[in-house]
Amino acid sequence: MSHQATLDDLVSLRRDLHRHPEPAWREFYTTARIVDELETRELDALYVGPEILDADERMAVPDDDELDEWFEKARAAGAREDILERLAGGFTGAVAVLERGEGPTIGLRVDIDALPITESEDEDHLPAAEGFRSENEGFMHACGHDAHATIGLGILDAVAASDFQGTFKVFFQPSEERVAGGKAVAEGGHLDDVDYLLALHVGLDHPTGEVVCGVDGFLAVSHFRADFTGAPAHAGAKPEEGNNANLAAAAAIQNLYGISRHSDGATRVNVGLMGGGTATNIVAEESYIEGEVRGATTELMEYMEGRAHTIIESAATMHDCDVEISVEGKAPSARSDDALRALVGDVSESVEGVDSILDSDELGGSEDATYLMQYVQDRGGLAAYVGVGTDHPGGHHTRTFDVDEATIRIAIDVLSGSIDRIAAEQP
Amino acid sequence: MSHQATLDDLVSLRRDLHRHPEPAWREFYTTARIVDELETRELDALYVGPEILDADERMAVPDDDELDEWFEKARAAGAREDILERLAGGFTGAVAVLERGEGPTIGLRVDIDALPITESEDEDHLPAAEGFRSENEGFMHACGHDAHATIGLGILDAVAASDFQGTFKVFFQPSEERVAGGKAVAEGGHLDDVDYLLALHVGLDHPTGEVVCGVDGFLAVSHFRADFTGAPAHAGAKPEEGNNANLAAAAAIQNLYGISRHSDGATRVNVGLMGGGTATNIVAEESYIEGEVRGATTELMEYMEGRAHTIIESAATMHDCDVEISVEGKAPSARSDDALRALVGDVSESVEGVDSILDSDELGGSEDATYLMQYVQDRGGLAAYVGVGTDHPGGHHTRTFDVDEATIRIAIDVLSGSIDRIAAEQP
Amino acid sequence: MSHQATLDDLVSLRRDLHRHPEPAWREFYTTARIVDELETRELDALYVGPEILDADERMAVPDDDELDEWFEKARAAGAREDILERLAGGFTGAVAVLERGEGPTIGLRVDIDALPITESEDEDHLPAAEGFRSENEGFMHACGHDAHATIGLGILDAVAASDFQGTFKVFFQPSEERVAGGKAVAEGGHLDDVDYLLALHVGLDHPTGEVVCGVDGFLAVSHFRADFTGAPAHAGAKPEEGNNANLAAAAAIQNLYGISRHSDGATRVNVGLMGGGTATNIVAEESYIEGEVRGATTELMEYMEGRAHTIIESAATMHDCDVEISVEGKAPSARSDDALRALVGDVSESVEGVDSILDSDELGGSEDATYLMQYVQDRGGLAAYVGVGTDHPGGHHTRTFDVDEATIRIAIDVLSGSIDRIAAEQP
Amino acid sequence: MSHQATLDDLVSLRRDLHRHPEPAWREFYTTARIVDELETRELDALYVGPEILDADERMAVPDDDELDEWFEKARAAGAREDILERLAGGFTGAVAVLERGEGPTIGLRVDIDALPITESEDEDHLPAAEGFRSENEGFMHACGHDAHATIGLGILDAVAASDFQGTFKVFFQPSEERVAGGKAVAEGGHLDDVDYLLALHVGLDHPTGEVVCGVDGFLAVSHFRADFTGAPAHAGAKPEEGNNANLAAAAAIQNLYGISRHSDGATRVNVGLMGGGTATNIVAEESYIEGEVRGATTELMEYMEGRAHTIIESAATMHDCDVEISVEGKAPSARSDDALRALVGDVSESVEGVDSILDSDELGGSEDATYLMQYVQDRGGLAAYVGVGTDHPGGHHTRTFDVDEATIRIAIDVLSGSIDRIAAEQP
Repeated sequence: MSHQATLDDLVSLRRDLHRHPEPAWREFYTTARIVDELETRELDALYVGPEILDADERMAVPDDDELDEWFEKARAAGAREDILERLAGGFTGAVAVLERGEGPTIGLRVDIDALPITESEDEDHLPAAEGFRSENEGFMHACGHDAHATIGLGILDAVAASDFQGTFKVFFQPSEERVAGGKAVAEGGHLDDVDYLLALHVGLDHPTGEVVCGVDGFLAVSHFRADFTGAPAHAGAKPEEGNNANLAAAAAIQNLYGISRHSDGATRVNVGLMGGGTATNIVAEESYIEGEVRGATTELMEYMEGRAHTIIESAATMHDCDVEISVEGKAPSARSDDALRALVGDVSESVEGVDSILDSDELGGSEDATYLMQYVQDRGGLAAYVGVGTDHPGGHHTRTFDVDEATIRIAIDVLSGSIDRIAAEQP
Repeated sequence: MSHQATLDDLVSLRRDLHRHPEPAWREFYTTARIVDELETRELDALYVGPEILDADERMAVPDDDELDEWFEKARAAGAREDILERLAGGFTGAVAVLERGEGPTIGLRVDIDALPITESEDEDHLPAAEGFRSENEGFMHACGHDAHATIGLGILDAVAASDFQGTFKVFFQPSEERVAGGKAVAEGGHLDDVDYLLALHVGLDHPTGEVVCGVDGFLAVSHFRADFTGAPAHAGAKPEEGNNANLAAAAAIQNLYGISRHSDGATRVNVGLMGGGTATNIVAEESYIEGEVRGATTELMEYMEGRAHTIIESAATMHDCDVEISVEGKAPSARSDDALRALVGDVSESVEGVDSILDSDELGGSEDATYLMQYVQDRGGLAAYVGVGTDHPGGHHTRTFDVDEATIRIAIDVLSGSIDRIAAEQP
Repeated sequence: MSHQATLDDLVSLRRDLHRHPEPAWREFYTTARIVDELETRELDALYVGPEILDADERMAVPDDDELDEWFEKARAAGAREDILERLAGGFTGAVAVLERGEGPTIGLRVDIDALPITESEDEDHLPAAEGFRSENEGFMHACGHDAHATIGLGILDAVAASDFQGTFKVFFQPSEERVAGGKAVAEGGHLDDVDYLLALHVGLDHPTGEVVCGVDGFLAVSHFRADFTGAPAHAGAKPEEGNNANLAAAAAIQNLYGISRHSDGATRVNVGLMGGGTATNIVAEESYIEGEVRGATTELMEYMEGRAHTIIESAATMHDCDVEISVEGKAPSARSDDALRALVGDVSESVEGVDSILDSDELGGSEDATYLMQYVQDRGGLAAYVGVGTDHPGGHHTRTFDVDEATIRIAIDVLSGSIDRIAAEQP
Repeated sequence: MSHQATLDDLVSLRRDLHRHPEPAWREFYTTARIVDELETRELDALYVGPEILDADERMAVPDDDELDEWFEKARAAGAREDILERLAGGFTGAVAVLERGEGPTIGLRVDIDALPITESEDEDHLPAAEGFRSENEGFMHACGHDAHATIGLGILDAVAASDFQGTFKVFFQPSEERVAGGKAVAEGGHLDDVDYLLALHVGLDHPTGEVVCGVDGFLAVSHFRADFTGAPAHAGAKPEEGNNANLAAAAAIQNLYGISRHSDGATRVNVGLMGGGTATNIVAEESYIEGEVRGATTELMEYMEGRAHTIIESAATMHDCDVEISVEGKAPSARSDDALRALVGDVSESVEGVDSILDSDELGGSEDATYLMQYVQDRGGLAAYVGVGTDHPGGHHTRTFDVDEATIRIAIDVLSGSIDRIAAEQP
């Protein structure tokens, strides 16, 4: 019989992952650790790295130097060499498959990447106090993906130990924080036969004991980067010979914020990052902006994206510059299906420790689980994004974020119970 | 009798300085090397570091970490420890004084700093071919200040060996490239009794053998840096809570370029550098711009500076941000006096190797020797900025710039001859 | 007994008003015609012009020349001289009061002004075909306020003829199209004792026979005008002496559209009008912009308004200009009360010609009836804004808009029935 | 023998022209009056209206309604019907030719149009006091072209009465104030054989008795108008359907002022006029800007013009608008030839009333006499622009401008003397 993790094992695993936070496409240690665990189970299939996704659809992949640096870091931290080799080139993530006879195919998606945030060293911060603070300085699991990966494994064990009938796949997806991995995984082939998909997130400002059966209100998002190239010139001697990349970027920024509001619903635009130039007395040859547009629906996001690209290109033309625009991340909107929402609520009723059940809540942000949800829904399947509350001292994406580990067991029970019930009822 | 450098000595010194290029306020090795030389001469006074300038008027002084790094680099390169100690805190530069009886006080100003440019490794580039390429990678004497310092020492020796009557002071001024040192040295006290001031520059697109008796057309300049501070916010969830520092900077850039032309003469404006923000999905809390304004006269520069500050402050207010503006460098305009121009021309006639003498030429750029010139002129003295041609393969401020070392002797003869003549004729 | 208009009378009245469309604060003929009608009824009170509003709260009042011109036009069209005299200074509108014993005080608000639109001359356009096209060229009842005033009179007659017990007030409000009259009327004193308020609008893209019991989704709005004053200068000879009012306006426009979206709901911004300058070769001394901000709630509108004023003032400061900002119109958001909504629906069930009843619909625009609704609601009363469908060939605010006159009778029945029922049930 | 005007006649003529100021291409009365005078002389040729210019090169021609209005005004003022007919369509201006045997062909250019300025009614303003104030309210000879036309006639008479040998042509050029007529006249054929060209201007801040032998410093200029067309939309209900013409214009304005300064010399840019939109709540469908660019040389003006057009087109594209750009006026730079300058100075020495002779002065503005000067110079001829001082109480282009009529005689003597001398000496 397959290995079965105890709760203590799972807490240890979560803390180990927490000590080794890795950002998008650099989850080498994380993937190796997960695969190492998975190999101790009796699985019907296990796909790793390039086997789980459509390589052409990966977004925001770092350059080789950057990938090498994190690869070496993972090796130094003790990641298994034979697994690491399968991840070369930033092909992180894994898909584990259980086949248990006749029945529907059910998918579970968990994400595994971390954030470029420096973790608190404060005594009140549990990971600091108990010795599992980030060892990759400047990076941190500040959104609970360490818990997500751990819960994913726990659910796999629970489903394996149940009388589940059907096929169960767990997707350990890389690169969610930049919404850069969801599309590649959605189009990687392993979702094609999935009838039901669940995704989960801990926290989201809900306390331990609260369950949100189906989260909605995902803002569709598109991240862009625009690199402007002009011509340098000495600003005192020959200013007219410059094609001013800083001025082109400034014109773009001013006008991007001026994209018209839309009567169909909420939209957003932000130029979060900008930079350019080399010296005060040189007309800037190069500049860049990085930003994002969002919409309450995919159509609204696409309206914003279309206008944004027109504006950026015109700003370049206006100042005799060239520009290259790249999409660095993207996610559609999506909705949780009511049938699954009801089922999850019903299951949650009898889970120990659950004391509040919300039918739905608005995310108000973006997530690329929506690519997977939409992929399944477009083929006639059902999907839901389940929120499992956790007491988190600091907010998401802050340096004092932490997960109440009691959540791990509750999440496993809610989700594995739901998966068993879906297989049984096929709603 | 005082030590007297041979031409070979001077070429060696220039090449040693060329190997150790140091940027503004970090000329530790350079100053130590010059002072070491000066101490072998019979001087009447030698002022070093804080003794030569008004500390309050230094602009663009780097932070302590940066200063320490270069201090250690100078120590490692063999700079004399006892001199280095006198330069702590970025107090570089020196003033050497000869007193030779009754007569006028004459000053000579040379600058000693280098540029943040990576020197060519090409075989055709003499310093690379002959082994005196920059050892401070990323920095380079690309404007001939290594030659200026060397020539300053040579002139001191020549005047000392002549029948000069009066007082002669050589100002080895730090931090010209950022026009950040001239004002502090001008107001350091040592110019108060100077009756005549000469400054010199090699090259300026004039070949070896050509002398420009008095350069004019200095654009007055002011370098500014503006740091915008707003409030961060999640661009998807709470965009209205952000005070957008990137947008404030963009509004400033757009409007700075729109400052009205002036009917009194040429003006310039450039935002050479910009940056801001932390992530695509965060409204930027901080941003900055660095730039410069210039004018054909000091008044025109001040018109531009006044308008620029108003625009920057309004752009901040407009987007509910704060802004701090700092002046990072500044230089007035100035004119060479005709009496000195004529005298230099006359002396040059009989200098061997001089085959072309121009009365004047336009610099078309900025220089903070103008602070020293103006200081002397405002007190009734005369000043001239002398150009000594040199064949330079690459342009000024390019990675293949180099000085024809034959210029060293010519410059010493032209300037020391002029100084002797000034003392004799007191024009 | 009081005069009672027949349906034919009402159609004639509507067509007469349609022939004399008058814009905000210039409804001289319209008011005189209404008052003339009212004086034939047995009213308990009739307030005219300055008696109905708080004069300090009028917005966007035209200058005297403009008022005089329309005053004369009304006189020439045959308006009663004695009534006209009471309207001098642009004090248009009236309030009619019926007192019928014990019972609640119920108000009905109708608006009476027209739009600056040139009416179609097309044969297919009924007013053109049947000879009641606008006689004030360039102005038109393109939003049905001619019908509103007529319906108001019809309801007054119907209530007077019923067994209504209580007090009934009809507010013939001027200057709705510019949202410039609602506030003044709301604060005019006559609402202080009103327990229930109904307002009505025909059309709104609903066909004849459809009733919307309580319209919601009023965008709060604020109209602004900003007048920039700089200094003129010859653009060739002395450009630097100009303080450029056109440039200030352009900076304001660019940045107004960039006000951040708000996570609490929909916002809007528009600079609909701009103008400035006198000649190509003169730096513009004067310029102006006129625009509006809106919000799904009053708070959101105020957020937009606050940001807009900061931006406009900073744009002026930025370019050394002065600016005067005036609020030219304003309306809060509001909601129809559910109790009235239900009652209106119930009454409509038995009105002949009503074949579709909608509980609510979104206006998606702005209306200053909201001032009156809010005034009543703030004092514990109830209010509803009732939509009465009408087949209108062209859209609202287009030159082919027209009202299906069958609507007049339906509207009178729905509203007078509701008023009787409110008095009886006091919900 | 030809009629010869006395000084009294000339003063009368000037005052008559002053009473009938007419703007560009509408100089119907003015041309008719001049032609009427010319027909009393013995001329060898007289060209009127379409015969003097290249019709395709006329700029800024008003529309037919506007032309008709002024045509009727001229008729009403008593202009000769037979001459008026030759001017139909805005073909104003005339060329008079004297042939006096062998000798060079010499041209004289005077301009005849007025400005859209309301003339002062002040008692101190001589034309008001003496009854020859403008009868075309809102228009005024505020730049002395009434005197120019008069002086042109006086010079013709003087040359005719002298022993001049050669051919002499006087160009009465329309539409200088908008720099819209010079090009058409330059290319009209009558300059092809001109060897020497003189142009003249009174005043220019020089007092009566001062002559400027050759004015220089003409800024080349190009006037543009850009009409933006977007799509209208209701700003509250459907803002996203608008293509915002006001926003496009604002983006254009902001960026036009940001065109880089040029190291070759002075440039200018101004958007003097702007307008757009129909209502605060409508996204503007149409807007326009009118402005100008200038340069110290024709090349600099063309640099500005090229950049301006790119910016305007990009601003339109940026906001999904179309734009049409038209050139409404244009003039190159030019220089007065030194040989003529010297000759005029020499002649002026002996002219009674001349007490100050300046070799040259800078205009600092624009003039389309430069088209004619350049046309002659390009074909090997010489040209000079002569300034004849006049005491003018108010500045040029102000409502109190007036000409000291003593200047008329001085100008005739200086110019006719110069023409005789040119013919004699052929410098």
